[in-house]
Amino acid sequence: MQSTSDSFSPKTALSPGTLSHVGRPRQQTTTISVMTYDAKEYRQVPRVNLDEVEALKSAPGCKWFRVQGLGDVETLQDLGDMFGVHRLAMEDVLNTYQRPKLEDFEDYLFLVCKAIAPGEEENSLRIRQVSLVLGRGFILSFEEEPSELFAALLKRIANGRGRIRNMDPDYLAYAMLDVVVDNYFLLLETVGDQMEEIEESVMIQPTTDTLQELYRKKRLALQLRRALMPLREISSALLREYPHLVSESIAPYLRDLHDHVIQAIDILESLRENLSALSDLYLSSINNRMNEVMKLLTIIATIFIPITFIASLYGMNFKHMPELEMVWAYPAVVALMAAVAGGLLVFFKTRKWM
Amino acid sequence: MQSTSDSFSPKTALSPGTLSHVGRPRQQTTTISVMTYDAKEYRQVPRVNLDEVEALKSAPGCKWFRVQGLGDVETLQDLGDMFGVHRLAMEDVLNTYQRPKLEDFEDYLFLVCKAIAPGEEENSLRIRQVSLVLGRGFILSFEEEPSELFAALLKRIANGRGRIRNMDPDYLAYAMLDVVVDNYFLLLETVGDQMEEIEESVMIQPTTDTLQELYRKKRLALQLRRALMPLREISSALLREYPHLVSESIAPYLRDLHDHVIQAIDILESLRENLSALSDLYLSSINNRMNEVMKLLTIIATIFIPITFIASLYGMNFKHMPELEMVWAYPAVVALMAAVAGGLLVFFKTRKWM
Amino acid sequence: MQSTSDSFSPKTALSPGTLSHVGRPRQQTTTISVMTYDAKEYRQVPRVNLDEVEALKSAPGCKWFRVQGLGDVETLQDLGDMFGVHRLAMEDVLNTYQRPKLEDFEDYLFLVCKAIAPGEEENSLRIRQVSLVLGRGFILSFEEEPSELFAALLKRIANGRGRIRNMDPDYLAYAMLDVVVDNYFLLLETVGDQMEEIEESVMIQPTTDTLQELYRKKRLALQLRRALMPLREISSALLREYPHLVSESIAPYLRDLHDHVIQAIDILESLRENLSALSDLYLSSINNRMNEVMKLLTIIATIFIPITFIASLYGMNFKHMPELEMVWAYPAVVALMAAVAGGLLVFFKTRKWM
Amino acid sequence: MQSTSDSFSPKTALSPGTLSHVGRPRQQTTTISVMTYDAKEYRQVPRVNLDEVEALKSAPGCKWFRVQGLGDVETLQDLGDMFGVHRLAMEDVLNTYQRPKLEDFEDYLFLVCKAIAPGEEENSLRIRQVSLVLGRGFILSFEEEPSELFAALLKRIANGRGRIRNMDPDYLAYAMLDVVVDNYFLLLETVGDQMEEIEESVMIQPTTDTLQELYRKKRLALQLRRALMPLREISSALLREYPHLVSESIAPYLRDLHDHVIQAIDILESLRENLSALSDLYLSSINNRMNEVMKLLTIIATIFIPITFIASLYGMNFKHMPELEMVWAYPAVVALMAAVAGGLLVFFKTRKWM
Amino acid sequence: MQSTSDSFSPKTALSPGTLSHVGRPRQQTTTISVMTYDAKEYRQVPRVNLDEVEALKSAPGCKWFRVQGLGDVETLQDLGDMFGVHRLAMEDVLNTYQRPKLEDFEDYLFLVCKAIAPGEEENSLRIRQVSLVLGRGFILSFEEEPSELFAALLKRIANGRGRIRNMDPDYLAYAMLDVVVDNYFLLLETVGDQMEEIEESVMIQPTTDTLQELYRKKRLALQLRRALMPLREISSALLREYPHLVSESIAPYLRDLHDHVIQAIDILESLRENLSALSDLYLSSINNRMNEVMKLLTIIATIFIPITFIASLYGMNFKHMPELEMVWAYPAVVALMAAVAGGLLVFFKTRKWM
Repeated sequence: MQSTSDSFSPKTALSPGTLSHVGRPRQQTTTISVMTYDAKEYRQVPRVNLDEVEALKSAPGCKWFRVQGLGDVETLQDLGDMFGVHRLAMEDVLNTYQRPKLEDFEDYLFLVCKAIAPGEEENSLRIRQVSLVLGRGFILSFEEEPSELFAALLKRIANGRGRIRNMDPDYLAYAMLDVVVDNYFLLLETVGDQMEEIEESVMIQPTTDTLQELYRKKRLALQLRRALMPLREISSALLREYPHLVSESIAPYLRDLHDHVIQAIDILESLRENLSALSDLYLSSINNRMNEVMKLLTIIATIFIPITFIASLYGMNFKHMPELEMVWAYPAVVALMAAVAGGLLVFFKTRKWM
Repeated sequence: MQSTSDSFSPKTALSPGTLSHVGRPRQQTTTISVMTYDAKEYRQVPRVNLDEVEALKSAPGCKWFRVQGLGDVETLQDLGDMFGVHRLAMEDVLNTYQRPKLEDFEDYLFLVCKAIAPGEEENSLRIRQVSLVLGRGFILSFEEEPSELFAALLKRIANGRGRIRNMDPDYLAYAMLDVVVDNYFLLLETVGDQMEEIEESVMIQPTTDTLQELYRKKRLALQLRRALMPLREISSALLREYPHLVSESIAPYLRDLHDHVIQAIDILESLRENLSALSDLYLSSINNRMNEVMKLLTIIATIFIPITFIASLYGMNFKHMPELEMVWAYPAVVALMAAVAGGLLVFFKTRKWM
Repeated sequence: MQSTSDSFSPKTALSPGTLSHVGRPRQQTTTISVMTYDAKEYRQVPRVNLDEVEALKSAPGCKWFRVQGLGDVETLQDLGDMFGVHRLAMEDVLNTYQRPKLEDFEDYLFLVCKAIAPGEEENSLRIRQVSLVLGRGFILSFEEEPSELFAALLKRIANGRGRIRNMDPDYLAYAMLDVVVDNYFLLLETVGDQMEEIEESVMIQPTTDTLQELYRKKRLALQLRRALMPLREISSALLREYPHLVSESIAPYLRDLHDHVIQAIDILESLRENLSALSDLYLSSINNRMNEVMKLLTIIATIFIPITFIASLYGMNFKHMPELEMVWAYPAVVALMAAVAGGLLVFFKTRKWM
Repeated sequence: MQSTSDSFSPKTALSPGTLSHVGRPRQQTTTISVMTYDAKEYRQVPRVNLDEVEALKSAPGCKWFRVQGLGDVETLQDLGDMFGVHRLAMEDVLNTYQRPKLEDFEDYLFLVCKAIAPGEEENSLRIRQVSLVLGRGFILSFEEEPSELFAALLKRIANGRGRIRNMDPDYLAYAMLDVVVDNYFLLLETVGDQMEEIEESVMIQPTTDTLQELYRKKRLALQLRRALMPLREISSALLREYPHLVSESIAPYLRDLHDHVIQAIDILESLRENLSALSDLYLSSINNRMNEVMKLLTIIATIFIPITFIASLYGMNFKHMPELEMVWAYPAVVALMAAVAGGLLVFFKTRKWM
Repeated sequence: MQSTSDSFSPKTALSPGTLSHVGRPRQQTTTISVMTYDAKEYRQVPRVNLDEVEALKSAPGCKWFRVQGLGDVETLQDLGDMFGVHRLAMEDVLNTYQRPKLEDFEDYLFLVCKAIAPGEEENSLRIRQVSLVLGRGFILSFEEEPSELFAALLKRIANGRGRIRNMDPDYLAYAMLDVVVDNYFLLLETVGDQMEEIEESVMIQPTTDTLQELYRKKRLALQLRRALMPLREISSALLREYPHLVSESIAPYLRDLHDHVIQAIDILESLRENLSALSDLYLSSINNRMNEVMKLLTIIATIFIPITFIASLYGMNFKHMPELEMVWAYPAVVALMAAVAGGLLVFFKTRKWM
């Protein structure tokens, strides 16, 4: 097998299983930190090199090797080889366009998912890839970028709160997935709140901005769908297919996780249907307003066009127009105009246009 | 495991299985009442504390421990522990965004559903969470808020009418679900009646209000769907999977319940399709009316614009306009105008615009 | 169990299995007629009371107890008890909103379906509930209202035509379902004919009436769908699941019935898609016509607005307007107007608006 | 069982299994021709009566009894009885609204499908029913009308080309179905070509004709779908379920047939989606054009309305209008008009309306 | 069996299994090149005739017989016969409208798929058919046209990079499919980039070009769907059903391939939904703009029409109009006009039209 480069040349030309970082070129550095813990002790080593990883591999208790940033492909490859991770799995870790999936490599479970995290600009958010390798006694996690995603979880382990310190790495994997899924809920809740504003704006004063906001939400929903749908397959497979790597005691937790994923998808589907209903409402709303504008224009124009014609008629300069000489002609014509205008108003009233 | 607080801090940071009330902060108090009954006797104890619950737990006959209001998390936790309810189940009881579900914890069945109840404002309604724990000899029910939901059922038990007094708690659970499902029917019937008004309004005089009413109904239908769809899974699972907690004698009742849920979903789906058809009708209706308005404007404008031009022509002040001097010019021009207007009217008739 | 009343109080408060007539309060009376027949003999007793039913129950040959009108709840209840029909089944008979279904009660098959019958107003139609109890040697049928639905079938039995006189009640049940399904075909054919008129009207002269007709057809299709879809489950279940009450010799007939139901659903789905395509066509048609109207308005207005301005210009009363004095000014201005109008006409021609 | 008439009275009143021709009353005559062949010999008898059929039934080799035209119900019934075809199958042969289906009657396979054939008017086409009875050593085929559908196939048998002369009737049945399916491809290809014209017309110059053409194509697609979908079930069932009547040697041919049916459905579904996309394009296109027309109207009207007002202002006949006397007033007003018009033009430019 | 011609006469008339090139008549010549390789050696013979193929057939190691261009039907037929390929499979090779499929002919696997390649015009692309016959020790590949599709793969084999030189032909087949699937990704990525431009154009300045671009993308997505969907069945079948021709060691690679196909379909479906959302946005956008245009027209017309009428009124030439003589009449009328215009402006402000 060939050595790899960190170039972004089209992967197509490469042999399958050849590593290279495919995806958003955001983070060039790669840092590894290690957490080891059991019911009594907790130790965190912030920045380790590969030799230290090698040493810690055989430490007692639960070990969490956490990799942040996917820039240093060579280090990642060595790390993968150290833990016996298949080349194709490492390729998936590096390809941040990878679809979420769960694969059983006998000795370890390999899992890719998408986590939501706030982006750098305000109100923006990013979907970041998180990959897990769950082996006997350890977890190897890969995050696309450094983030605060697992900060609360780390604190919980450090403080020894919850049951996590008494459990095996499979519970840690569950806890990480739980964090990932809960973040979807937080996002969906935020979007739900924004939907109410959009609804109001569509009903009361629809603008082009509202329309574009609707479209952006639709696109976001599409992205979330692509991230969430495979998660359902993953949680369902975890629950049913992998008893040899997942202990029975965490089954209720996995069932709970699965429930949450299904619920998130439920909310997302409702959101999508709501967005579609709002788009219809928007279109009808705009049509309604145009209708109203047209009606006013029609009323004004239809009333004034005939009486303006009458005025123009008597503005003609013909020598022989007997009406012009008559004393009562002017008031008579004005009365005629009033009659025409009044008649038209009555006509509009009967049509319920006013 | 950690003690819980009743704060509404984001649950994400908490360890799974940590109790806290997640959801609408409506009702802070928690009251427990107990009903015990058998074929001969019926006793209702309105407000009990945990000690009294403990005492009544081992009473003979059927016991219904009814909890209303989810504000007092600590009491609920103690109550859950007293009956051996799993922490994750108690978490679901407290999270009123929970998706309806049925879970088998060997010793008891745990069930969450959504009940419909009238809201405080007129014509409003609220979807409230009802959770049931069906154990051997007892039912533990949790309602998000105090309500009249089970009033008729309680009276039936008190009066000893129907077969309920001779049956086990599984029949009581069925009867409660039956009430919940029947309330969906009542709501769907009301909505069905309102649909006829909306239809009429769309056909005869579509307004912006009609449009917003349509949208609100669509959103209601979405909410009902999210509440009803899981109920189908629940009733189907009750029917097929849990013979050890559900006696065979109530199978026909469960089949009936399942039928009702499917029928409610049928009606709901029809409602949704009808709403979508009405939205189309609305849009076409509005377009139709605009078309009519446009036609009138076009007819009026098209007739008067040319003849007004003719009038303006002879309103020009040129010295040398020989027509102005002629005696028959004025009647001739008026005749020309009439001819133009008449010709256009005939043109519109042939186009069937009038 | 409680005795029942024929009030229409909300069923929700009643114990499950308590009988009351829920549905359209159309027909208060209940009449029972009995047909007994075998290969040689046929006897019809038009109006019997419960005692006569009891006596005829044990007669030899095939017995068809036909109930028309669901108003007399007490009689129906007694009748149900006489034949050992489950209370929940009798409740379904009386609830005319019941979803079509087939249930196996070991001793008998219980079946609910919806039959189409002409309504009282011209061109109206009603969907009426028909329930069947197929037991050993007899059929008990309940029709919501008296009707001519089974008139031809009765005549066929009376005349001894077809194979029906040689067959068991399961064949009679099949024959009744066959009549019900054939009526759907007749209706779908009628609707198909009407669709051609609607199509023509949409293409040639779309009016608001057309639009409302389209919507009414959509709603009818929705109703038919709710009636037909469960019928497919019923015919499929009859074919596969109930050999102990349905003799093997009628299997080809049931297969034929199932084929017909599927075909009716096929036609219905095509109808629905066609209706949706016609709605789109309507909308585009209306938009097209508005476009045409707008084009005419634009052409007329755009031609006359500039030349009317020119006329107004020379209608101003300024003292010092040198053009007004010139001899050739008037013809020159008229020529200018003609040039402007002609230029605009050419412009419209190049844009293919004319 | 009753004798049948060829009247078109509603079939509903008839006993099931009673024959009568239901469907389009196109062809009253019925002709039977017989082809017998084996590897060495081929004989074609063009118009035979029932006695000759009886005689040929027991001839050696492959026998194809081909019936064209379904008008003579009595002959068809006798023919059916002669070959032991079930009454319900014969009823399906005569009902040309029959859904395509495949039924196993132990001794023979019964198959109904829809073939496409050119209609009498140019560019029209008709969907005609073809029914097959595949027995041991013979095929009995029923075509709704005489046609050239199987002309090429007959020639192939006559010339002894291809493998057909060496094969059993099951291969002949396959060959006939292959002809039927290939005709769908030819039609879909033609429609595909027409689609390109429609596309061009929608994009460049959408007219009402285009719209109606789109709708007609949609309806055609619906019809084809109803004909093709059951064909998939048929080809799949032939492949999997009937080894006792279909020899193993033709399995690759049946697989090929099944592939073709699936491919035809694929193309049809693409066509349907394309039609729907084109409808959207049409609607947007029309809206676009209306927008363009409106913009021109708005520009012309908005420029001339204000300056025409100014002209009218100075066309008033008040005695005391000091401006009228001033020498520079006329050029000043004209300059003002030019400024207003120019300003508006600049405004439109900045809005990108021009 | 008959000899074949390369005419494009309608295939319908031909016996099944008769070869003829059906499809786009692009490439008349047919060239065959052969690559043989094992871990140590690699040999490429660029243009061989059938005799050389025959000779190379029994060479040791992996053999790849690569056919480019499908014009020479006779050569292809001889080649097919030489490798014992079924006539129906060869027919599928030649029919470039063939749906992608995988078929097991016991001795070899036959596979058809669609590869994407750049077309001759800039920015155009073509979907070309690639067929593979995977036998023991060899691969026979047929490409519709010569192309650079497998250039990188060939180089990799030549250079001995990757594991391909150590593997059997099944790995080569996988590698070819991998190239095909990766090309879909490249295309989908390009389309994804173009979508962002289209989005921007829809939001900021929607034109008719944008609309047509949207439609073209929809049609492209339809084509890709028809090519990709069967690929999923193929990769899934490869993974599960053919262990006797596919060695177990390449299972992880096939799983990876399957994942990629599913991911490509995921992206495609998102693209389709996005296109549909953009179409809605376009329509709403156009309606929005028309609304804006209408509002301006209405404001201008509504303000000027009444005041122009007033001016026309006093432009009438009646003898007896007392106002005309009054000194303050002119300023009073101008003030009235200003009041009317101002009032209307205030009215528009309150309606939020300005």
